[in-house]
Amino acid sequence: MLSTTPRTTLGRSKERGSTDRDDLYEVLDSGLICHLGVIVNGHPMVVPTGYGRIGETLYLHGSTGASSLRAGEGTDVCVTVTHLDGIVLARSIFHHSVNYRSAIVYGRARLVTDEDERMEGLRALAERLAPGQWDYVRKPNRKELAATAVLALPLDEASVKVRRGGPVDEEEDYDLPVWAGVLPLVTSWGEPEPDSVLPEGIGAPVHILHRE
Amino acid sequence: MLSTTPRTTLGRSKERGSTDRDDLYEVLDSGLICHLGVIVNGHPMVVPTGYGRIGETLYLHGSTGASSLRAGEGTDVCVTVTHLDGIVLARSIFHHSVNYRSAIVYGRARLVTDEDERMEGLRALAERLAPGQWDYVRKPNRKELAATAVLALPLDEASVKVRRGGPVDEEEDYDLPVWAGVLPLVTSWGEPEPDSVLPEGIGAPVHILHRE
Repeated sequence: MLSTTPRTTLGRSKERGSTDRDDLYEVLDSGLICHLGVIVNGHPMVVPTGYGRIGETLYLHGSTGASSLRAGEGTDVCVTVTHLDGIVLARSIFHHSVNYRSAIVYGRARLVTDEDERMEGLRALAERLAPGQWDYVRKPNRKELAATAVLALPLDEASVKVRRGGPVDEEEDYDLPVWAGVLPLVTSWGEPEPDSVLPEGIGAPVHILHRE
Repeated sequence: MLSTTPRTTLGRSKERGSTDRDDLYEVLDSGLICHLGVIVNGHPMVVPTGYGRIGETLYLHGSTGASSLRAGEGTDVCVTVTHLDGIVLARSIFHHSVNYRSAIVYGRARLVTDEDERMEGLRALAERLAPGQWDYVRKPNRKELAATAVLALPLDEASVKVRRGGPVDEEEDYDLPVWAGVLPLVTSWGEPEPDSVLPEGIGAPVHILHRE
């Protein structure tokens, strides 16, 4: 079960909320990027960035020089992952909606200093974005590791919202001669595009060719 | 040209930045949802939400009871729109990246009170998410309008970042017997799914069937 705190208790659309930890993991583990919210000089700042998960910890990374990461270290952050699954077309504009799955994680990010945890965090990040690549390509060297900051965020405080299904209209609008339903949004992988300087004879590995 | 302020001046990857207003509009006008960052009780909060644009103003909306909107009214917010176009697979983990187009808008949101501007803002929101629907379905009535808050955010302070193309590897890594390139991420519309209670004989309109 996910903990319930004032900021994870949904004020609206309570029927869309989930307190199931498996739902949280499902949303996080099927995303590619998150939107990281931090406060910089008193203002909110939202940046898209990669992430990875190991058990109950979310890992983020960035250049040691990135202002968003510097702002996030040791302070409260918010990480949001959103999957947009379709547009819900109702019989009135007011009831138009979207089908989506989203997770919002709140917490204090910790700068990871343990070298083993740093490496495992980076591996989790790489596996989320490009599964199979960690074992296939050159791993980070000492210089690259020194340039990379890794942050850990505990998955203690989070909320999950899911909307599925067709429109819900006002009773009197069902008689309108108007089409209603869902226009699904489909995300898929295209054909791998080889680097222009790739030598002949090097084919894309199976984990790229047949990525799910 | 976009204004340059400390928070829109890119600290890193300057070659990815754009100060062209057309690039900003292109990113905003091809997105479906944004991630809205606000400060709630001193903590950052990032929520996915719809938006629309008219000229140099971005419009957001929500229930008059939504805490994210209440927090955003009259205070600084950050609106980020991100398109993920592909995964960049390099010869080293460190140089893995993503191809993307993103816009980050900073500003003070204004609660729209003028009824004409509210209606136009809502129309812009609807046209972004579901073009053609505003003129096709029932428009908002007085009760629905009263339940909807509309916020306006000037597009005065914004940054745009775009990454395209293949991996950029370390000189010595180009000799590795490793495939490198880009795995494109493709987003497309699926087949419209009619509402289960839709009467026979009502077909989906052209703007749904042939949405770009």
